[in-house]
Amino acid sequence: MKLPFIAAVALLIAPATYAQDSVMFRKIADEALLHGTCYDNLKVLCKTVGHRISGSPEAAKAVVWGEKYMKATGADSVWLQPADVPYWKRGKESLMIKAGNGQYKKMTCLSLGNSEGTGGKVLEAPIVMVGDMAEFKALPDEAVKGKIIFFNYRFRQDFVFTFKGYGDAVKYRWASPTMASARGAAGVIIRSISTGKDDFPHTGSMRYADTVKKIPEMAIGNNSADSLEVWCKHGAVSGKMQSECHMQDKMVRSYNVIGEIKGSKYPDKIITVGGHLDSWDVGEGAQDDGAGCAQSIEVLRIYKALGIRPKYTIRAVLFMNEENGIKGGIAYADSAVAKKEQHALVIETDAGGFSPRGIGMEMKDDQKDKIKAYKDLFLPYGVYDFSIEEGGSDISAIQERMHLPAASLIPDSQRYFDLHHTNNDVFENVNHRELKLGAAVLAQLIYLASEHELF
Amino acid sequence: MKLPFIAAVALLIAPATYAQDSVMFRKIADEALLHGTCYDNLKVLCKTVGHRISGSPEAAKAVVWGEKYMKATGADSVWLQPADVPYWKRGKESLMIKAGNGQYKKMTCLSLGNSEGTGGKVLEAPIVMVGDMAEFKALPDEAVKGKIIFFNYRFRQDFVFTFKGYGDAVKYRWASPTMASARGAAGVIIRSISTGKDDFPHTGSMRYADTVKKIPEMAIGNNSADSLEVWCKHGAVSGKMQSECHMQDKMVRSYNVIGEIKGSKYPDKIITVGGHLDSWDVGEGAQDDGAGCAQSIEVLRIYKALGIRPKYTIRAVLFMNEENGIKGGIAYADSAVAKKEQHALVIETDAGGFSPRGIGMEMKDDQKDKIKAYKDLFLPYGVYDFSIEEGGSDISAIQERMHLPAASLIPDSQRYFDLHHTNNDVFENVNHRELKLGAAVLAQLIYLASEHELF
Repeated sequence: MKLPFIAAVALLIAPATYAQDSVMFRKIADEALLHGTCYDNLKVLCKTVGHRISGSPEAAKAVVWGEKYMKATGADSVWLQPADVPYWKRGKESLMIKAGNGQYKKMTCLSLGNSEGTGGKVLEAPIVMVGDMAEFKALPDEAVKGKIIFFNYRFRQDFVFTFKGYGDAVKYRWASPTMASARGAAGVIIRSISTGKDDFPHTGSMRYADTVKKIPEMAIGNNSADSLEVWCKHGAVSGKMQSECHMQDKMVRSYNVIGEIKGSKYPDKIITVGGHLDSWDVGEGAQDDGAGCAQSIEVLRIYKALGIRPKYTIRAVLFMNEENGIKGGIAYADSAVAKKEQHALVIETDAGGFSPRGIGMEMKDDQKDKIKAYKDLFLPYGVYDFSIEEGGSDISAIQERMHLPAASLIPDSQRYFDLHHTNNDVFENVNHRELKLGAAVLAQLIYLASEHELF
Repeated sequence: MKLPFIAAVALLIAPATYAQDSVMFRKIADEALLHGTCYDNLKVLCKTVGHRISGSPEAAKAVVWGEKYMKATGADSVWLQPADVPYWKRGKESLMIKAGNGQYKKMTCLSLGNSEGTGGKVLEAPIVMVGDMAEFKALPDEAVKGKIIFFNYRFRQDFVFTFKGYGDAVKYRWASPTMASARGAAGVIIRSISTGKDDFPHTGSMRYADTVKKIPEMAIGNNSADSLEVWCKHGAVSGKMQSECHMQDKMVRSYNVIGEIKGSKYPDKIITVGGHLDSWDVGEGAQDDGAGCAQSIEVLRIYKALGIRPKYTIRAVLFMNEENGIKGGIAYADSAVAKKEQHALVIETDAGGFSPRGIGMEMKDDQKDKIKAYKDLFLPYGVYDFSIEEGGSDISAIQERMHLPAASLIPDSQRYFDLHHTNNDVFENVNHRELKLGAAVLAQLIYLASEHELF
């Protein structure tokens, strides 16, 4: 009987506070839409730092950017939290394809993150295409051994929420080199994990099992994959892979950037909102996840600009190394556990700075009900979907170790997998109003959680 | 007691059909997302025809495009419906600004649609800035006479639904030349009716009262307007306007393009879905409203591809001349009235091919309730908002004359007023998934209206 009772209480108290909350929601949105700085701040990150893979000099510059703009919000305190991160370097790379009796032709490609290249040497081998895992498993051993396996699995476009399509397809990026190497393949090419109707290849993380030889893995764009598919259907195709990418031996000292507004009533109770500061080493990491960083900073700015003194302590965190290690998220969790911090709620924004549509929640049902009791307040801001079970990568470590409720911003997902992890993830593909609205919704959610002491 | 009763009946019958409808909704969405051709068709329109103002040779080419792709759906019949339209020609134009003792410098500008230019001559005059209508009215006559009035009204960014901001600001485009001319002003410059954080000027329609001299009107982009605002605050500013734009004396014969699938049970009952084929004479008219045309065609294609034989007759209409005359919409109404056609519902898609969020309705409450009874069916496709009172310009004539219920697709509105009526309204700023989802929702709505005989 506990859950219904709590939900009923939430519903009973809600109407009394709705009017005031509604006014504050409007103030927060006005501040974001009329005076928001997140779009301008993101432009600085994208255009003066650009892409910023963990461990790189650009990532170090991004830390400086984050510290500067976090301080500019007027936050009570801003600090850097050390995290040692891996440093994967791409170097030069190329992919040449020969169809039938034709000449070798260059194909635009990206090695997958964390993968080991060919040591700069040319790896030439016949290409064998498979449509999915089952087809790969059905191949006779001699069709795999010494070959480059082309995993031609298509991102399912029929899911309206594209993260479902990503969840379905991403195993081909992550696991195919291990599967192929275990059977003696020489290399792997994948159709990019992408909804794009274009030729931008998408990089992204992969991992080798300890038991296999590290063979190279490259992604090609959807248009190139369409061509390669046709060639493979009509005759013998071979490829030349050449790449220098490899994981550096030494970890690099890097940092999470943290800004904080101290709670007025419960200074020891912390609500965290964060995105990740690192990106892949292509494009500008604009939607993934410069957007989330700029929004997290904006939450603090909105609080200070409106003179809101939150009951709980509000922290914005720019996590380092989400893309290939989550070392920043782990460092944040380690520190919180060591200091015996009290965390009320952790929130992530790492699905792009698109128009907000929902709030993802990974928490108990009675905790979800506490937020859902206020769902009508979010409706004027386009937020209606509270059904998605989602927290975030960066906050997963602290969430698990401290058994915390986690939430996330759920923006419109249609464009995200056209852009992310590509050279096309640039500032120009972020819309100022969409980005600001997302920041407003995060500030609204935090306002509710803090002022109504929901957690 | 009538309204509640009807609503209750709708709710009672709904659950019984929900399961079947839900399956059909999914089939429609799958067809659009997996096999949709609207994005490819739109590309052809944008890249081989481009912009296409009413009366222009490009508009004539667009009619050919529309007829071709309408026929390609396998529609039962496709025809052209004549409409005589105005032809406004831009010609050459320039705007030079001199601030203080400086030199004249060129500023990017667009004359407003339907306006009369300077006849190619240079109009040089001091510039007087006003923030809004009230400020203009408060100006002494000598501050207006012979001057170029700069209406520096800002598009309100605080409205989440940007069409509200448009409704608020668009009078400055439409009415300011008449107001200024009535007091002897020589010309008008306006801050573009735009949410854009950029320097794209937005054109769009204006009209002179019959009682005033036709003075020129030009729009400048937001960044240029910011500069001009600063200059005007700090000293004397003058402008040189030069433009050849004018309305041609003769109307031009043009056409609506209509495709139809005949109803199986009620062939005489018609549901119309349409967008407009003309655009302004800049950019590619991609979001405004190539998107709506491609979606309307796609609705017929989805019906034919899935083998749905609708009970009602379904018509897709590509209206001509929405932007500066609505002559196509009037011709459609004239024809319907003359032929005593029976129209059940008219639907417009002219708010861009962005992610769908709602269905606008201009109809009686009991009619709205019939659609709302099925609202949960739309939720998996991101459509949750049934609160907006909105039909469309093209369908307004038939709606009024035949007293019809009207509906519209309400997509996410954040990016529309960055793009529309500018050189930046190009195919590259349309997303394939967003466009297709919108088409799916239109087909779903029509499916409900036809198969459940809602109107």
